[in-house]
Amino acid sequence: MAQNTVEKTSVTLLGLGAMGTALARGWLAAGHPLTVWNRTPARAAALAAEGARVADSAAEAVAANTLVVVCLLDDTSVGEALTGADLAGRDLVNLTTSTPAQARARAEWAGERGARYLDGGIMAVPSMIGVPEAGGYVFYSGSRELFERHRETLEVPAGTTYVGADAGFAALYDVALLSAMYGMFAGAAHAFALIRKEDIAPASLAPLLADWLVAMAPAVHQTADRLRSGDYTKGVVSNLAMQVAGTPTFLSTAEQQGVSPELLSPYFKLMRRRLAEGGGEEDLTGVIDLLVH
Amino acid sequence: MAQNTVEKTSVTLLGLGAMGTALARGWLAAGHPLTVWNRTPARAAALAAEGARVADSAAEAVAANTLVVVCLLDDTSVGEALTGADLAGRDLVNLTTSTPAQARARAEWAGERGARYLDGGIMAVPSMIGVPEAGGYVFYSGSRELFERHRETLEVPAGTTYVGADAGFAALYDVALLSAMYGMFAGAAHAFALIRKEDIAPASLAPLLADWLVAMAPAVHQTADRLRSGDYTKGVVSNLAMQVAGTPTFLSTAEQQGVSPELLSPYFKLMRRRLAEGGGEEDLTGVIDLLVH
Repeated sequence: MAQNTVEKTSVTLLGLGAMGTALARGWLAAGHPLTVWNRTPARAAALAAEGARVADSAAEAVAANTLVVVCLLDDTSVGEALTGADLAGRDLVNLTTSTPAQARARAEWAGERGARYLDGGIMAVPSMIGVPEAGGYVFYSGSRELFERHRETLEVPAGTTYVGADAGFAALYDVALLSAMYGMFAGAAHAFALIRKEDIAPASLAPLLADWLVAMAPAVHQTADRLRSGDYTKGVVSNLAMQVAGTPTFLSTAEQQGVSPELLSPYFKLMRRRLAEGGGEEDLTGVIDLLVH
Repeated sequence: MAQNTVEKTSVTLLGLGAMGTALARGWLAAGHPLTVWNRTPARAAALAAEGARVADSAAEAVAANTLVVVCLLDDTSVGEALTGADLAGRDLVNLTTSTPAQARARAEWAGERGARYLDGGIMAVPSMIGVPEAGGYVFYSGSRELFERHRETLEVPAGTTYVGADAGFAALYDVALLSAMYGMFAGAAHAFALIRKEDIAPASLAPLLADWLVAMAPAVHQTADRLRSGDYTKGVVSNLAMQVAGTPTFLSTAEQQGVSPELLSPYFKLMRRRLAEGGGEEDLTGVIDLLVH
């Protein structure tokens, strides 16, 4: 009765938090045999009803399949869960949130135990998993061979973007993008705070704000060009000196509207410092240099 | 020889900085008779060659036309330039960067002198003026009658968005959007700083960063919905408690990469404060409440 003669890769999945559960459903829905394990067993029950095999221990789950995907709370949980599991010959794909250093150490740790290793950084919330049009995806780094071997399976729950052999790069790209997002959210929070005491509906500001942020986001391409060339001044339209001259308007407006400037001030402070150090003819790229020590 | 029997509105423009000059060229190119004045006369010479009439004083320029557009350095410059000018019966459109309070005071000041008043906040750099496909536009607030009367003329150099009868609203929307942009730029600066010491080209990060920011910008619509309803918890996927639990990964990664957390920490600090005050089940909207006092 098989509708497809190509056998789907069997997957072991450790960790059934919101994200793990979403990944599990993605693979089950696509017909991949799935073995799951979770520290607290209750979460596995619902998936068993949907066709997953539930292992009694992480070691048993690891023994079940070559491809072992791990999506736990943090790196410490990964070490704890895999203690006692035989990783020899396993293809370990670690989607657990971690720092680049943790990912690199975990890759070495896996190698010492005879496993191939691929690290992943998930750019999605659980509701975006298994919904390709939602645009979620996962950064992968580490063994390219392992990535290519399991690419088709990994692409089932979410898109894939391979970013390098350095196991820490997936985490680094992940953290970089999410850090930038928090910056954008901080700026948007300030914007909404500014209109709080006025007769302006937040829904009047939102579309203008969204469109403006979308229009300005591509400025990061120019930033990348300047970082590559090292020339922060060529063809600058609105230079740092002019932009610093404009900051009092932003700070006065915040004060007039009863809004704390704490989310805006640190960037302005760096702009002023770069100006004081002679960067007046530059665009804003020089601020990046001040962040790295 | 007139190709168009409809006479174009004559415009007076005070201020020929980079932005004023771009506006002037937009009107001249579209065939609007233009009278210009600038504090330092040299900048007017080039425009004279392109067909502008150059006035010897701001008062003379104001006397020349009903529609008087002002684009000076700051609000103080506006007061200084217009001292001695007869504003009675004039349609004053002030595009000078100002705070909402300055715009409101200037509207009252103009009214006392017999002028109608419209304030503007320019969402564009000079290179976007006269280039409709660049997407630049101007927020207007104040007299709607004046806006409608001159809408066609005002739309020549850049798109128009009227945001209310309160003369301060154009400045408020302007500052709100630009503040949010600086937040996004701050986040992007942190992201580029994170990869500085790695073998990763900024141009490899840039497209992923731009796409991610574009994908996340529409989150401001949800924020507006929550602010309207006052319900910050309904249907939250990744709640504040979970997001705060993730912040050590961001801060550790910054430390590992030798990057100062100063642009990221203030937002995380507010997230932690909101969590401590009981907002763990909310999304990030509650941070906005902490900014307003």
